[in-house]
Amino acid sequence: MKEFQFSIELDVRDYECDMQGVVNNSVYQNYLEHTRHQYLKDIGLDFAVLTEKGMNLMVTRVEIDYKSSLRSGDSYISGLRMVRLSPLRFGFEQYIYRKSDQKLCVQALVIGTNVNSKGRPELPQDLIDVWGLE
Amino acid sequence: MKEFQFSIELDVRDYECDMQGVVNNSVYQNYLEHTRHQYLKDIGLDFAVLTEKGMNLMVTRVEIDYKSSLRSGDSYISGLRMVRLSPLRFGFEQYIYRKSDQKLCVQALVIGTNVNSKGRPELPQDLIDVWGLE
Amino acid sequence: MKEFQFSIELDVRDYECDMQGVVNNSVYQNYLEHTRHQYLKDIGLDFAVLTEKGMNLMVTRVEIDYKSSLRSGDSYISGLRMVRLSPLRFGFEQYIYRKSDQKLCVQALVIGTNVNSKGRPELPQDLIDVWGLE
Amino acid sequence: MKEFQFSIELDVRDYECDMQGVVNNSVYQNYLEHTRHQYLKDIGLDFAVLTEKGMNLMVTRVEIDYKSSLRSGDSYISGLRMVRLSPLRFGFEQYIYRKSDQKLCVQALVIGTNVNSKGRPELPQDLIDVWGLE
Repeated sequence: MKEFQFSIELDVRDYECDMQGVVNNSVYQNYLEHTRHQYLKDIGLDFAVLTEKGMNLMVTRVEIDYKSSLRSGDSYISGLRMVRLSPLRFGFEQYIYRKSDQKLCVQALVIGTNVNSKGRPELPQDLIDVWGLE
Repeated sequence: MKEFQFSIELDVRDYECDMQGVVNNSVYQNYLEHTRHQYLKDIGLDFAVLTEKGMNLMVTRVEIDYKSSLRSGDSYISGLRMVRLSPLRFGFEQYIYRKSDQKLCVQALVIGTNVNSKGRPELPQDLIDVWGLE
Repeated sequence: MKEFQFSIELDVRDYECDMQGVVNNSVYQNYLEHTRHQYLKDIGLDFAVLTEKGMNLMVTRVEIDYKSSLRSGDSYISGLRMVRLSPLRFGFEQYIYRKSDQKLCVQALVIGTNVNSKGRPELPQDLIDVWGLE
Repeated sequence: MKEFQFSIELDVRDYECDMQGVVNNSVYQNYLEHTRHQYLKDIGLDFAVLTEKGMNLMVTRVEIDYKSSLRSGDSYISGLRMVRLSPLRFGFEQYIYRKSDQKLCVQALVIGTNVNSKGRPELPQDLIDVWGLE
């Protein structure tokens, strides 16, 4: 497994599995979002407060590679690293591993930006500071 | 099939089916909610406007009987009738039938109330009027 | 809080919240199902093995009372007790409490049966034994 | 709007919207999958039959660009085109437009392959024929 800035460990829930007996493709985006939001919470970022300050974080693009399937009964480790992609964009490199054998199941790049109160993309300095980006 | 005040016809989506190859139990509540909201839209009720007037509709109890399962490829008919249960409570009698043979799949009673701006249950007269309840 | 045979503690995930900022009504059924399946796993019941033996557990009815809403950021405790309702039916009494103040959010009765290989309801003795029902 | 091989028209359902009042990012993958499965059904491909023949279609990668948000009350048009990407891979170019003003909301590339009975990627000729790929 890679080194992460943040990771959580969770169990597959049976209602997340589809007719093929595996976790449905769209459910991994739920896992990825929950991991990002727990990470933000962990470093003290509160969406409500950010929004009041006129900072609106939004996802603009996702790239997800499905490497191997999670199944009923599996536990998984979901980890992320943040990277600065440009003056206006940041990215989350995210990985989901099956816990039992640390097999890579999903690898994703989630690209986002922040929109200021005038509706224009802008990464405020205090966001960059708390994220530890350069 | 029963006579309804309102009904819609929809297709089962494959991601709604679980490991047993049938629509997962919790998904029927999505079907039931969507049917109620489409009904309200149909009779001209807009949640945003209701909320501005201090009317907050909320579900307090559901009773759902699972009679037969919907599967991938099925279409279904989801119908409802509204009833006044008490001065403070209304109910939706809801039924979901498989379209191909009109077999009853789910039968439900969804009970709700309206909470006024003081946080107390109250069914305003104009809500009763537009619903045609007595 | 009541005494339970089994309980788990989980966090609300932001994608489970709807436009009103609260956990959507249908999502509680996901919580309730996941709690039941974790309980069955905990006492050594494996669905696949049960099915091979011709035992098909199924939910026939749910009654859910919504007492108070869970919100983004909340953690909750989901507990259950099993009861024998009749020679052919069992029930799960389920409760979901907000962790911070132990306020009751959802109270539910989930009724099920087991269908044998001939398609008839039947509660086999070894199922009754492992559940500790009388 | 682009020209499509296949498209469907659907309504946003309120339970698909999140705290921000917009359709949650992960839900678009549900829309995209449902559109692909309806397309396959439309051209006469049945997953069960394909699987019996030892053909297992699977998604290996998705790229999704979020251009604009769908909201409660919106209807949308979801269209696709299939393309052959390599001897072993096919792709679905998918687009979701808001119906009212034909504004592009989501643009996606969904890449898949078919795994034969020996677990190796293979696109059988009859699959290529029915898809009209070259």
